[in-house]
Amino acid sequence: MPSTLLKLSCPDRVGLLSRLSGFVAEHRGNLVEVHQFTDPQAGWFFARLAIDTATLGIGITELRAAFAPIGQELDAEWTLRSETVPMRVALLVSRQSHCLADLLWRWRSGELPCAIPFVLSNHDDLRALVEREGLEFRHLPMDAGRQEAAWAEMAQMFHASGVDLIVLARYMQIVPPALCAEFHGRIINIHHSFLPSFVGANPYQRAYERGVKLIGATCHYATAELDAGPIVDQEVIRVEHHHTAEELVRLGRDCERLALARSVRGHLADRVLMHGNKTVVFRD
Amino acid sequence: MPSTLLKLSCPDRVGLLSRLSGFVAEHRGNLVEVHQFTDPQAGWFFARLAIDTATLGIGITELRAAFAPIGQELDAEWTLRSETVPMRVALLVSRQSHCLADLLWRWRSGELPCAIPFVLSNHDDLRALVEREGLEFRHLPMDAGRQEAAWAEMAQMFHASGVDLIVLARYMQIVPPALCAEFHGRIINIHHSFLPSFVGANPYQRAYERGVKLIGATCHYATAELDAGPIVDQEVIRVEHHHTAEELVRLGRDCERLALARSVRGHLADRVLMHGNKTVVFRD
Amino acid sequence: MPSTLLKLSCPDRVGLLSRLSGFVAEHRGNLVEVHQFTDPQAGWFFARLAIDTATLGIGITELRAAFAPIGQELDAEWTLRSETVPMRVALLVSRQSHCLADLLWRWRSGELPCAIPFVLSNHDDLRALVEREGLEFRHLPMDAGRQEAAWAEMAQMFHASGVDLIVLARYMQIVPPALCAEFHGRIINIHHSFLPSFVGANPYQRAYERGVKLIGATCHYATAELDAGPIVDQEVIRVEHHHTAEELVRLGRDCERLALARSVRGHLADRVLMHGNKTVVFRD
Amino acid sequence: MPSTLLKLSCPDRVGLLSRLSGFVAEHRGNLVEVHQFTDPQAGWFFARLAIDTATLGIGITELRAAFAPIGQELDAEWTLRSETVPMRVALLVSRQSHCLADLLWRWRSGELPCAIPFVLSNHDDLRALVEREGLEFRHLPMDAGRQEAAWAEMAQMFHASGVDLIVLARYMQIVPPALCAEFHGRIINIHHSFLPSFVGANPYQRAYERGVKLIGATCHYATAELDAGPIVDQEVIRVEHHHTAEELVRLGRDCERLALARSVRGHLADRVLMHGNKTVVFRD
Repeated sequence: MPSTLLKLSCPDRVGLLSRLSGFVAEHRGNLVEVHQFTDPQAGWFFARLAIDTATLGIGITELRAAFAPIGQELDAEWTLRSETVPMRVALLVSRQSHCLADLLWRWRSGELPCAIPFVLSNHDDLRALVEREGLEFRHLPMDAGRQEAAWAEMAQMFHASGVDLIVLARYMQIVPPALCAEFHGRIINIHHSFLPSFVGANPYQRAYERGVKLIGATCHYATAELDAGPIVDQEVIRVEHHHTAEELVRLGRDCERLALARSVRGHLADRVLMHGNKTVVFRD
Repeated sequence: MPSTLLKLSCPDRVGLLSRLSGFVAEHRGNLVEVHQFTDPQAGWFFARLAIDTATLGIGITELRAAFAPIGQELDAEWTLRSETVPMRVALLVSRQSHCLADLLWRWRSGELPCAIPFVLSNHDDLRALVEREGLEFRHLPMDAGRQEAAWAEMAQMFHASGVDLIVLARYMQIVPPALCAEFHGRIINIHHSFLPSFVGANPYQRAYERGVKLIGATCHYATAELDAGPIVDQEVIRVEHHHTAEELVRLGRDCERLALARSVRGHLADRVLMHGNKTVVFRD
Repeated sequence: MPSTLLKLSCPDRVGLLSRLSGFVAEHRGNLVEVHQFTDPQAGWFFARLAIDTATLGIGITELRAAFAPIGQELDAEWTLRSETVPMRVALLVSRQSHCLADLLWRWRSGELPCAIPFVLSNHDDLRALVEREGLEFRHLPMDAGRQEAAWAEMAQMFHASGVDLIVLARYMQIVPPALCAEFHGRIINIHHSFLPSFVGANPYQRAYERGVKLIGATCHYATAELDAGPIVDQEVIRVEHHHTAEELVRLGRDCERLALARSVRGHLADRVLMHGNKTVVFRD
Repeated sequence: MPSTLLKLSCPDRVGLLSRLSGFVAEHRGNLVEVHQFTDPQAGWFFARLAIDTATLGIGITELRAAFAPIGQELDAEWTLRSETVPMRVALLVSRQSHCLADLLWRWRSGELPCAIPFVLSNHDDLRALVEREGLEFRHLPMDAGRQEAAWAEMAQMFHASGVDLIVLARYMQIVPPALCAEFHGRIINIHHSFLPSFVGANPYQRAYERGVKLIGATCHYATAELDAGPIVDQEVIRVEHHHTAEELVRLGRDCERLALARSVRGHLADRVLMHGNKTVVFRD
């Protein structure tokens, strides 16, 4: 049974959950799953309500219209979506295939309910991997001198395809601040280290040199400040002295795949709420 | 700021959360934390609401009286408790000290907010460990022939001390069905294996013989059927071929301590709800 | 730099490692990596020596001939292999693709250095997934009445292709005892539970009913006794009350993929030694 | 059966393991456990050999004398010790008890075979916890102005008691470089963060502010450069958005206790070898 999802964050005040559940009850909706969190330091309220769509005596457009005045009154950021309309997700990759291959398999198997209008890369290497899934592959080189034009072209593509989410599945280019700002909270990046350790390039080599006993990966929303955006998920794996830097790369790939897949899945289900530089994640 | 905790489970129906949060709002209570779960297979609703006590315009006794008709109408099992009145917990041990020592340290450090009227053992070995904490140690032997009398005496002690929870911290005696029934959902046991593997005695030896690569521990509520009660928490640790059965015992102790401590802490905070042979655990 | 791998197990006696490392030194081999384990209960010695092939003043055939008398004297089971000759691995699947897709990606990326003469299935569903990798897919139905003939045909295929290892990547058929015996220690199976819990069919449904808080997968060598063969690796993941049986299946897939991939990789590198019903795994 | 332990590191060359195992065989020693690792980048060889003491036809002093010329020839750092002579360990603490209580329990239970000549603190708070174990507690204040004298006094104590290992079990003072140098590789510190993240003070508060989803602890050898010494072990735990900074502290305590206990246990068994800024740890 498909759900209708209300995701909301707003300044905290007394009676918020009663107000929201009351709204749903008014429209005869049956609550399937409710998550609520109040951040006492920030004084902020976060909620996700999953409503059995079949029980609602009203369509999604009308429901949105009915909720709009409440959202305004509460000074809330909110979305009301039907699960039956999947998000549209653009995947961006460079030359490494492990995250892409994993996402594609999970998408194919139904673990990632979304539409993928295209996969975009600054290299042509992964074309076959994409096209054999019946998906469109777009090659957009990022040669020195034409980067600005390329980013503009890319933004165009996002607009034209009505993209809801951009996944940087090991896309080795730094997203310009303007694009980060426009798609604030809608660009997911996988960083190949356990942030905030080893920010930037070559984290596995640096982890090897530091002699750490655990390596990891971090999935976060891209923001203008490199590798400093809100963290969605992290994953670690134990390593030993005998692992070379190359072997850390190999082991790290499994961390990256798991952290990214879980984060994308959470975002697609409206389970990730951003506030300032942190996230609230209502795990499934 | 201390909370007032409403724990409730009942048959599912439309509008339950709205009803509960409405009740709290009526009494001007501010919801600090809300957890809700509906089991679609069982058709059962579970909730835990933490209310800022300071915001309530009514005492706990009056609040209970005000809620009683709602609880009855919903056919609910429910409790309404103030965090400021800690549960009374009897610890039962035999000869092994690791779980006891860990619980005592966590209790002393404030991780386990409860009162401990006494620690009871069928052996006298751990008396010093208990008495040096200023707690009462009771030695109740379980010699063949006088077991029935001993269990009766023990039940007396639980009644006399108004015990809310009984923790079997490696108590190597099988609790009789009548006591399990009387304290249904209020006897926590730590089983030194990853249930349902290796039910019963000597699980580490048997794990060693089977050559498993992970060992674990399981915390569950004791029921008449041995080692088959509702599971509260489990913990595992990776082992290798070079670990002897004795080393599995050593490594397993850390699993046992962690799983038991987390489970007791959850129970003390009304975060564990039982239904049939399963638990709903709203993790902290 | 490729290695030459000596894998050996034999009854324990004084001076074994000195004997083996002396043999290598005699042939001017440089030891890259040495693992040794003595099981004190079984009185058995296990070793794996990786020798830098370039330093050996002798070819693999001559080296084997030179070692043969030592092996015989020590009553040892042993192999001497060059890493440059990869094992030949047959993959067996039914309808579920997650393990197969993962193994193929890892094989393609170089994580699993082996040759795959063919992928065999009792169903035709996964043909495209295999053929697009340029691998041969063989459909061998297992209809009632013709199973005996099918198993005989399959054994023929293994012989004809010189198969070193058979991987049951969610192959939902029970391998007959004769085939288990012939390929003793060379058939790897992934069981979708944390053995010895939930042996047999539908383990996730049974785990759901039992209300466990951790689920897992077990990789083991297939033997005549179902699900009781020597365990190579296990993997677990934490689950909560809100996970349905279907969601346990989804989460379990990641456990299965990781445990199977690690086990196959270990076997390919001669890191797994079997003795009786247990394994010694020199992890990489 | 007690073992004699040879721990050795030296520049790599051909035939090292053969040389060492030959030496043991010469003295009729039976090898119980052998670990060896060659770091190809550093060109360095590391080994730990456990010899069944009962099989040696020679005492430890004579064995050391016999090995000395080999050690010199190999340019090796090495120790030869009998397990029956436990290391002497000084524990240093400040006001927090969790690591101390854990170490004392493990010591009492036999998990940490060592002698503890004294526990030293810059505060008097933990005196009772120590003295009730029958151990000596020394209070050495670190007031501004008398720190230099206090460190000198402490060094005196280490010399007078023949201390082999110093464990900083949440000792909140920075060890002066001279002491770090003198006890190079023999001062174990537990840092309450997952290094190299959040070096220095208040890591849990900073982890909270950064919104990480995993927190951890790092055990390392103290060196003159703060928090930059060779890492022995690390531990992590998953956290969620609802955990306050105080709750991260609580959860982190379990990480700290486990990482420290494992590291101390490894050091006591000569399983940790230092080279430059890294460690080789032959795990038990």
